[in-house]
Amino acid sequence: MRDEFRYWLPFLTKDVPAELTSPVDVARFELAQALPVVAADMKVELQPDGTASEFFTVRSEGDTVTISGGDVGVLYGVYRVLMALYCGEKLPSDQTQQPKYALRMVNCWDNADGDIERGYSGRSLFFDDGMFDYEPERLRMMARMMASVGLNVACINNVNVRNPAHRLIEDWLPELAEVAAIFRPFGVKLMVSIDYSQPMRHGVPTADPLDERVQNWWNEQCKLVYAAVPDLVGFLVKADSEHRPGPFTYGRNHAEGANMLARALKPHGGKLIWRCFVYNCQQDWRDQKTDRPAAAYNHYVYLDGQFEDNVILQVKNGPFDFQVREPLSPMLLAMPKTSLAIEWQLAQEYTGHQIDIYAMMGMWQEVMADLGSDTIMAMAAVSNWGDDACVYGHPFAAVNMFGYGLLCWNPDAADPEAIARTWAKLTYNFSKADEDTLVDILLESRCAYEKYTSPLGLCWMVTPHVHYGASPDGYEYTAWGTYHRASRDAVGIDRTSSGTGYADQYPAALRDRYSNLETCPDELKLWFHRLRYDYVMADGRTLIQRIYDDHFEGYDWVVAAEEKLAVLPFPEADKALIMERMSRQKKNAREWCDIVNSFFYRFSGVEDAKGRPLYI
Amino acid sequence: MRDEFRYWLPFLTKDVPAELTSPVDVARFELAQALPVVAADMKVELQPDGTASEFFTVRSEGDTVTISGGDVGVLYGVYRVLMALYCGEKLPSDQTQQPKYALRMVNCWDNADGDIERGYSGRSLFFDDGMFDYEPERLRMMARMMASVGLNVACINNVNVRNPAHRLIEDWLPELAEVAAIFRPFGVKLMVSIDYSQPMRHGVPTADPLDERVQNWWNEQCKLVYAAVPDLVGFLVKADSEHRPGPFTYGRNHAEGANMLARALKPHGGKLIWRCFVYNCQQDWRDQKTDRPAAAYNHYVYLDGQFEDNVILQVKNGPFDFQVREPLSPMLLAMPKTSLAIEWQLAQEYTGHQIDIYAMMGMWQEVMADLGSDTIMAMAAVSNWGDDACVYGHPFAAVNMFGYGLLCWNPDAADPEAIARTWAKLTYNFSKADEDTLVDILLESRCAYEKYTSPLGLCWMVTPHVHYGASPDGYEYTAWGTYHRASRDAVGIDRTSSGTGYADQYPAALRDRYSNLETCPDELKLWFHRLRYDYVMADGRTLIQRIYDDHFEGYDWVVAAEEKLAVLPFPEADKALIMERMSRQKKNAREWCDIVNSFFYRFSGVEDAKGRPLYI
Repeated sequence: MRDEFRYWLPFLTKDVPAELTSPVDVARFELAQALPVVAADMKVELQPDGTASEFFTVRSEGDTVTISGGDVGVLYGVYRVLMALYCGEKLPSDQTQQPKYALRMVNCWDNADGDIERGYSGRSLFFDDGMFDYEPERLRMMARMMASVGLNVACINNVNVRNPAHRLIEDWLPELAEVAAIFRPFGVKLMVSIDYSQPMRHGVPTADPLDERVQNWWNEQCKLVYAAVPDLVGFLVKADSEHRPGPFTYGRNHAEGANMLARALKPHGGKLIWRCFVYNCQQDWRDQKTDRPAAAYNHYVYLDGQFEDNVILQVKNGPFDFQVREPLSPMLLAMPKTSLAIEWQLAQEYTGHQIDIYAMMGMWQEVMADLGSDTIMAMAAVSNWGDDACVYGHPFAAVNMFGYGLLCWNPDAADPEAIARTWAKLTYNFSKADEDTLVDILLESRCAYEKYTSPLGLCWMVTPHVHYGASPDGYEYTAWGTYHRASRDAVGIDRTSSGTGYADQYPAALRDRYSNLETCPDELKLWFHRLRYDYVMADGRTLIQRIYDDHFEGYDWVVAAEEKLAVLPFPEADKALIMERMSRQKKNAREWCDIVNSFFYRFSGVEDAKGRPLYI
Repeated sequence: MRDEFRYWLPFLTKDVPAELTSPVDVARFELAQALPVVAADMKVELQPDGTASEFFTVRSEGDTVTISGGDVGVLYGVYRVLMALYCGEKLPSDQTQQPKYALRMVNCWDNADGDIERGYSGRSLFFDDGMFDYEPERLRMMARMMASVGLNVACINNVNVRNPAHRLIEDWLPELAEVAAIFRPFGVKLMVSIDYSQPMRHGVPTADPLDERVQNWWNEQCKLVYAAVPDLVGFLVKADSEHRPGPFTYGRNHAEGANMLARALKPHGGKLIWRCFVYNCQQDWRDQKTDRPAAAYNHYVYLDGQFEDNVILQVKNGPFDFQVREPLSPMLLAMPKTSLAIEWQLAQEYTGHQIDIYAMMGMWQEVMADLGSDTIMAMAAVSNWGDDACVYGHPFAAVNMFGYGLLCWNPDAADPEAIARTWAKLTYNFSKADEDTLVDILLESRCAYEKYTSPLGLCWMVTPHVHYGASPDGYEYTAWGTYHRASRDAVGIDRTSSGTGYADQYPAALRDRYSNLETCPDELKLWFHRLRYDYVMADGRTLIQRIYDDHFEGYDWVVAAEEKLAVLPFPEADKALIMERMSRQKKNAREWCDIVNSFFYRFSGVEDAKGRPLYI
């Protein structure tokens, strides 16, 4: 596997042995095998301080480097120094780094049957056929990848907890402890998703969080869980969402629901990560007042200050659901007295299924610019890996996991180009010109995908359920709250105060930026406004012409990218996979382009100004 | 089961015992138990002639009735006489009946795993978990229902033969023989669907029909099959359709493909039923020239006269695929030198999933009027039964199986109202007024469903794959060849000689009727023509207003039907199921109505003349 596909740690060829049980041991092992490769005449000394701290200090002078810090910090420092040396970077003479956020989480949506929900790179690395089933070497490889970019929490099962995954915190505790032990030497701690109604599987007739029997069940269960895995980070919960059970069933609010679990976890130092993905998935499409993106804010903001201090609300970056372009979720800016985590989705559910190239760094940068790195205290991301030969489905999808680690470590320094370039150098070690080509493709990929898919923030024009491929009306007459309301004259939903009022959930500056047609970014114009097809954009083009142009340009980009990639000197295995995926991306882009353009042509009756084909 | 739901044989309360192995024995058994119920003082004498003939003669004089005929004919005669007596009909003094068609077939789309493809009434009566698994009593009940209306062939497995169903004619022959023995006393013979590439599972490197090894494999296999089931009717084959293997793979035409199998069957008296459901299911939606309904004609008509005499081409009633309204398939009128069977679909795939009421007799009558009963020599229908408590999903869906039997027996006498009335009388035995209410609902149900669903012959506005519920664009930008091409001005496809030319496949009278806008029936106007929304229909309404009206009227019909059914004196179990289904039909109709109307409102911009709500 490692021989065939290259990751961003090309200087590591030997697996970490199972016998190594501390981060410092692992750090010494990695250093011993890699240093001769990356800098044979250099001397690196490790000075761990015996704590579990994650900071590290790198001091270099001539050929001598010292890495000091906490035990985990020293491991992080080793990976960073090795990567820097491999990339030919100059080491700092004296620099201390520590992560911006204490929790830098990867959420695996793995089901106990081995399937991965929204997974596009094979099957689960943890489960198969209704039980734990894993290769320890493979898990160590994942843990190493995580540690190399500073990721420190793995939630190993799907937030939609389906039978028998609830057993993870019941009779599967010995196995859970074994997995925790595999990850521990890499500084990676486990988290598990739990089912809110879990007590009801054990004779408790309710899951009401205010019911003493429920509280007792969780208190006792947490004792058992922490006896088995003392450093478990805690529980991740998706409650009252898309038919999941939750406190609403019992007339309780989400503070009451979350706090009950948080109190059970608190004696053990555990956290309760509460996902805020609540909306009405039974909406009447005729209803023009209910606006799904407004739901989370309405459900949570009034509870600010009411959560236990070990509760963290985990909020998707946008108010919909990982669409190709969304504004920041407004509830992230409205709960100053609550611990918040942002949730990204590395799995490319709506962004090309790891068939189409889609590097996410630009999205992170834009969202973080609006959010501010101090507004949140943790990050989470839905993982994009699986048991595929190349781990990430598409070799390039690895850049999203790589970059995500660096983003969590320090979002203020997570420059998209630097991330792409470092990853490219580590993975392929091309000439500067070839690297430039690859980096440009990665950096452009997100906006290219956006151009040939759902235009200008419209979202949801995807094949229902599958979420790959164009279906402009696929979610239009459904109960999912996902409408574009295209008609012969106009398209989009007015979400300003004159419409659904969603924009008023933002602080004034953002509210004004989005509400004002002149200042609202083009990419979000149809997210916030209903516009006529003859609306004139800032550059003088009509909306309909802009839609046509974007789609044709998006497709053209794919054609050009294919040509460029075809001549880059990828290793053989990568090349075959990249070009195979590229041909599928091209087919997908052609369909998206023609379907969306024809969809709007049929409504508007407007021909393309450049005479390109549109179809009735 | 029989105690709870009533079928059309209410006078039969005892199961036919397994010991009875001849039709005459069964006839005597049924007569003995039913005659005291339906006419205690009547005397009925049976005079079987010892042959397997299906004709029967009923002579009655006073209280004495004689039923003579072939052994199977006498059984048919007994059921007919019992039904007539139960309904209070006068018996004929001397009347001989024989079926119009020798093969009156029910096609079960049952998979070996027990699932029924497009089945809406539970699971398979024949298979479960990859093997034969049935209750003999239940099969006898099905066979009795078939015999009571003269149906005489059951094809027991899905035309899409999925592993391990190919084993039916391989190592499952002993079980196949057992099932045949269960059906035989009812005059019902078996047929099986086979996989065209079946020899390739047994070391033959090809399935080319001109390859001697393939021919030999089938010749030998037929010997084994007929040794086990000597009266097997033959094989049913779906080849080269929707990714099924077939002769096209080897550059052979369908006469070559079918004749090879026919020759293997011929020494044993077997028939080869060849389904003519071939079209390009990989069409480019941009392609305006290819017209899926034209495909079957193009693939088959030139082969007229080239098929072996034991080949029967089985052709769906319409050229698409069991849509709510289709014209007659033109190939049925274009192959005078070929044996043809028409195929109906009792399973309500596109017509309400046996949730919505949809009695099919009107459709049969219209299609047969265009076809002529002598043009074909057999009938087949996809079954609508399963292991549901009420067998047919909806108690009313039984009328379609009941009526289908009478249709096959004599299509020229299959009056929709007579069928509905007889079925209603046998099933519920209501007062005349209540029976009238029920019969009206049945007779109106088809056009009501049509009104609130896909308008005026447009077809295919259904949820993809599922085929229940509205999705106007669901199949629009796909490869299935199913397009309406709605735009802001017009909708539909011109299928006349000025368009795709499909209409020219009909004989002159039908071609002219459909091609001429004035003579084309309203219900098929959008099947054959592309019309502007402001096109004025014969009654002065515009096309768009007609669409709106139809949809609102269709929904209103459902509301009214619910009220009428609520006060009819159904048995308790029927009532509960009928009203539960009715509430789902109402919800479905509301969605269809509002979605289709809003879809066209968004395109046309035209308000409803009566001010009813339309939604953007």
